[in-house]
Amino acid sequence: MLPLSLADLVERVGIADLGAEFDTLLQRLYPICRSITGQGVRDTLAILAESIPLQVHEVPSGTPAFDWIVPREWNIRDAYVKNSRGERVIDFKKSNLHVVGYSIPISQKMSLAELKQKLHSLPDQPDWIPFRSSFYRDDWGFCLTHRQLQELPPDEYEVVIDSTLADGSLTYGELFIPGATSEEVLFSAHVCHPSLANDNLSGISVATTLARYLLARVRAGLTPRFSYRFLFAPVTVGSITWLSRNEETVKRVQHGLVLTLLGDPGQIHYKRSRRGNAPVDRAAVHVLQSAGVPHVVEDFLPYGYDERQFCSPGFDLPVGCLMRTPFQRFPEYHTSGDNLSFVRSDKLTDSLSKLLAIVDVLEHDATYVNLSPKTEPQLGRRGIYRALADRGSDGGNEMAILWVLNQSDGKHSLLDIAERSKLKFEQIRGAARLLEECGLLRREPLGA
Amino acid sequence: MLPLSLADLVERVGIADLGAEFDTLLQRLYPICRSITGQGVRDTLAILAESIPLQVHEVPSGTPAFDWIVPREWNIRDAYVKNSRGERVIDFKKSNLHVVGYSIPISQKMSLAELKQKLHSLPDQPDWIPFRSSFYRDDWGFCLTHRQLQELPPDEYEVVIDSTLADGSLTYGELFIPGATSEEVLFSAHVCHPSLANDNLSGISVATTLARYLLARVRAGLTPRFSYRFLFAPVTVGSITWLSRNEETVKRVQHGLVLTLLGDPGQIHYKRSRRGNAPVDRAAVHVLQSAGVPHVVEDFLPYGYDERQFCSPGFDLPVGCLMRTPFQRFPEYHTSGDNLSFVRSDKLTDSLSKLLAIVDVLEHDATYVNLSPKTEPQLGRRGIYRALADRGSDGGNEMAILWVLNQSDGKHSLLDIAERSKLKFEQIRGAARLLEECGLLRREPLGA
Amino acid sequence: MLPLSLADLVERVGIADLGAEFDTLLQRLYPICRSITGQGVRDTLAILAESIPLQVHEVPSGTPAFDWIVPREWNIRDAYVKNSRGERVIDFKKSNLHVVGYSIPISQKMSLAELKQKLHSLPDQPDWIPFRSSFYRDDWGFCLTHRQLQELPPDEYEVVIDSTLADGSLTYGELFIPGATSEEVLFSAHVCHPSLANDNLSGISVATTLARYLLARVRAGLTPRFSYRFLFAPVTVGSITWLSRNEETVKRVQHGLVLTLLGDPGQIHYKRSRRGNAPVDRAAVHVLQSAGVPHVVEDFLPYGYDERQFCSPGFDLPVGCLMRTPFQRFPEYHTSGDNLSFVRSDKLTDSLSKLLAIVDVLEHDATYVNLSPKTEPQLGRRGIYRALADRGSDGGNEMAILWVLNQSDGKHSLLDIAERSKLKFEQIRGAARLLEECGLLRREPLGA
Repeated sequence: MLPLSLADLVERVGIADLGAEFDTLLQRLYPICRSITGQGVRDTLAILAESIPLQVHEVPSGTPAFDWIVPREWNIRDAYVKNSRGERVIDFKKSNLHVVGYSIPISQKMSLAELKQKLHSLPDQPDWIPFRSSFYRDDWGFCLTHRQLQELPPDEYEVVIDSTLADGSLTYGELFIPGATSEEVLFSAHVCHPSLANDNLSGISVATTLARYLLARVRAGLTPRFSYRFLFAPVTVGSITWLSRNEETVKRVQHGLVLTLLGDPGQIHYKRSRRGNAPVDRAAVHVLQSAGVPHVVEDFLPYGYDERQFCSPGFDLPVGCLMRTPFQRFPEYHTSGDNLSFVRSDKLTDSLSKLLAIVDVLEHDATYVNLSPKTEPQLGRRGIYRALADRGSDGGNEMAILWVLNQSDGKHSLLDIAERSKLKFEQIRGAARLLEECGLLRREPLGA
Repeated sequence: MLPLSLADLVERVGIADLGAEFDTLLQRLYPICRSITGQGVRDTLAILAESIPLQVHEVPSGTPAFDWIVPREWNIRDAYVKNSRGERVIDFKKSNLHVVGYSIPISQKMSLAELKQKLHSLPDQPDWIPFRSSFYRDDWGFCLTHRQLQELPPDEYEVVIDSTLADGSLTYGELFIPGATSEEVLFSAHVCHPSLANDNLSGISVATTLARYLLARVRAGLTPRFSYRFLFAPVTVGSITWLSRNEETVKRVQHGLVLTLLGDPGQIHYKRSRRGNAPVDRAAVHVLQSAGVPHVVEDFLPYGYDERQFCSPGFDLPVGCLMRTPFQRFPEYHTSGDNLSFVRSDKLTDSLSKLLAIVDVLEHDATYVNLSPKTEPQLGRRGIYRALADRGSDGGNEMAILWVLNQSDGKHSLLDIAERSKLKFEQIRGAARLLEECGLLRREPLGA
Repeated sequence: MLPLSLADLVERVGIADLGAEFDTLLQRLYPICRSITGQGVRDTLAILAESIPLQVHEVPSGTPAFDWIVPREWNIRDAYVKNSRGERVIDFKKSNLHVVGYSIPISQKMSLAELKQKLHSLPDQPDWIPFRSSFYRDDWGFCLTHRQLQELPPDEYEVVIDSTLADGSLTYGELFIPGATSEEVLFSAHVCHPSLANDNLSGISVATTLARYLLARVRAGLTPRFSYRFLFAPVTVGSITWLSRNEETVKRVQHGLVLTLLGDPGQIHYKRSRRGNAPVDRAAVHVLQSAGVPHVVEDFLPYGYDERQFCSPGFDLPVGCLMRTPFQRFPEYHTSGDNLSFVRSDKLTDSLSKLLAIVDVLEHDATYVNLSPKTEPQLGRRGIYRALADRGSDGGNEMAILWVLNQSDGKHSLLDIAERSKLKFEQIRGAARLLEECGLLRREPLGA
């Protein structure tokens, strides 16, 4: 199969300017007030469904999901704090971060002192509104900049949250792209954060773009080796609910990645799966190492995003996490600073290119057998050196040829060879393709 | 079982001042002239028997012990070198180091030149008397400071050693504290060095104090998981003799430590067992690493104290060695400089606290099974976060909770989890206890 | 068996001055115009056959050898470029590097411009003649210094190469020295480079000297444990041809080394076999590490000399490569700078001494069982300490004695023990011999 690449993506999907495409999608998604349930998730999935055939699932409140229960659905229409002159001093319509997520409805007058019990701000980041929520306990609150908090005068305030917390459903979106085998690759992005760009929209955008690309390839007859599954779900309870309804499905998951925090200017990070050295871990590490750019590989930690659930001991799926700066390590995290200007489309593009390279390794890793294993074959006679020159670096180079021949004893895959030789996977793969064409190599059946 | 700790020890044993307790014991033991056999060992064990129910064994001279034979018993009453004016210029009664250990009796007049053939001193440490012995060959000698040696005038000297070397027995002490299982932990300290404080008395004192503590816990109903065995024996031939009489016993030894050199001001050192990564090795390394203080972990070497015998290939017991500065690496080693002022009670206390922490790991390491292994359980609903806050660091923390849940698949013990998470064992253990109380974890049967 | 050593070699072979011996051999071999076939190889082997009973094999042109075919035989009598005054401006008789190896015959007049198409020089090394060849394509050419090339005036030149390229045979030499077992050690040196000293003659000389030594030992009744096979063959097609005729033989190869580039002044290098940690790799690494001199150990790479063929996946022989500066990493490589003054006899001697030490490890590695495995035996009673003093360092030292006793449980060989103890193999071996003599150790049967 043709290698996956940014250039091929842009051409095949028919995108004029990938950066502008990212910007447009983020601008549409950013204003929506998402939470773990409610209309915000539905509106988000509806926008994604314009470009990918997303299947939207609704799971009723009260449905058990392992140790959890699908919570009541939260919806909000308006919320504000008005001063005695009737001015909205805190206004949900200006920023949905102003309201604590999952706030119960309220309509009440109160003094500044009473109000302050329910206000949240960041003394160390006085110009940013924090993001807070009150899942699983009936509470309410407002968030605002610390600067504004300090300037609030004593007054009688009217506090209104026009929300509902009632039986409804939890919503998630799923896209399945069948491949040549029923073995699956799982990508997961969370869709439950309101106006936060990196911590939500970056992963959603990159995942959607990858899905568009794979679909375009399928339409062109380039059926992938694996089947691909994309999950857009609220964090924690969303992935838990999905897992509880897909216990059989996940037995087919061979590789997986949680996609999040992919648009900030930091270095790219890969967090290993619980298994530590699963093929997806090795593929990701190889791609980052051979890209020759600063990057960080971190060990698994049972904390973070939905890899916590995928890597719980009852599943132990080979799912890692691809991101740039990890959560809590950038000051904008969970504040209004994580906005559209914090996320850069060139960084989203760079993240996507690394993701494509990882998928390319997973798709094309294979084990070959050298059909002329006793001493080296006479390459000159077979025109290999001439072919190498003709194809350029895509066709591998002489060292890649020699490594593939030497290691193709049926026990080493192309990724094994790339790791041992310290050559790039694409070089090794190019060499293998050339040797296969010359009849010097036979590909072992998949799964052998 | 309650964690082992210095505070619990002091309270339970009823010690007003642990440092003073160490000092008193050392002061009583220091003047005794110990050797590999003889009354000195008996006097030493008698003092220990005042606080622990020590069983004293006497093995007759001539008894075979593997490749060895229990030697004749050595006893000494007096020894001196008198000058022609009848003054004792070298006097055993001032320091028992003055006589070469195991010296045969002698009574003779000789010139300075003849005498010098039998004198030992340390030119590089001119103020210290060396410690020498002449086991397994009939010889005699005196030790003195190099300063004194150089000042000895030509004279006719009277040389007297009033010793006996005759059939008798080899003496060792043993204490067995039965636990919930017949699996044993072995602690060994040597008792054959005369007035040397670090290289003998430090290990004896720490071992005795640990034994008093375990006994006090048993009296309070806190039966340990393991049975504990304490051996106080002469180095080499003592442990060899004990091993020869306890071949069945040692099959039950699951963990062991040689305790020696525990009172000097140097960093704490742990020397691994021959196995290299036995549970006792991992427990000791974890305790020293997580204590966050400078320390040294050394690989096994078939040289040192009685770990040489315990780790001989016919036994290969999982016995390491806990010490501060290893032998031969401090100038006071085997000299009169290794005296009561060299050994500090605060260092003995520190060594004991590390030992307690190691025992605590061995006692409490266990494997658990997460009973809600598919995705994370809903901890908030179960009051875990509240319990964490109530219990403080003893109850683990949120990361410890998540690690224990994630790794408790029946294949990883608490020590495994502490190692992987880089959290302290006590945190991991506290988290496991809390989760077990909540019904989220089941402890696997011991030995499973 | 007596250890192998330079001193023993010199005495047993009867060499007055090893350095001079190397110099003489190199001086005789240097002028010969070797190639992958032809009289040059035969002349070379004939010189070696004066000191070792070499069996010379001739394999006819056209014989298939795996994916290869034995090429036509190349011979050359004369070659030159004459100017219009009849002067030989490029003369094969002055340096056989002047002619591109395997040049077809030619006799023609041409202008400077035409001639230059066929001239090779090194602009960066203007005083050296490059070494070039044109195997497997019918071509011809001359090599000369860049300085000379630049000074060639326009003229009509007469170009003559009096060579033949015709059916004949490929020649290689082989020496087999039977040992106590049919298991073999293989040494290989290539013999196909013309006047290049390090890249050819150094390996040939060291291999020949080792063979002389082993033969002398056999004559003295010191039959080696292994059988030894020396191969002197043209690189690539030579070893491929040999392998194709010896598929059964190579199944007996337990260890092997390619010997090349052993006379330059650089650090000694060891390149691991494809297996990476075969006994020969461990022996070589141990020898270089314990020699305490700067050295480099490199991982296997399917590029270099005939280890490429021996380590092809269909054979995967445990064959490493011993050299000093690897090919392409010294400026003299494949130029007239790689001449007799570049190769130093003291470096050849040093390389040989390392090789002897490696062979010594392979010959003497064995597994022993401690017959007194429970606790340490009483060494003093058995006179071990006295024996240690008598024998000096050859008999090991006390630590070596203790390590051998401790590790000889039938699972650890002497090389294992040397690696773990970080003592020299010869110390460990000496200790084992001493303990065996005392009846404390029993050697396990070979191959057990």
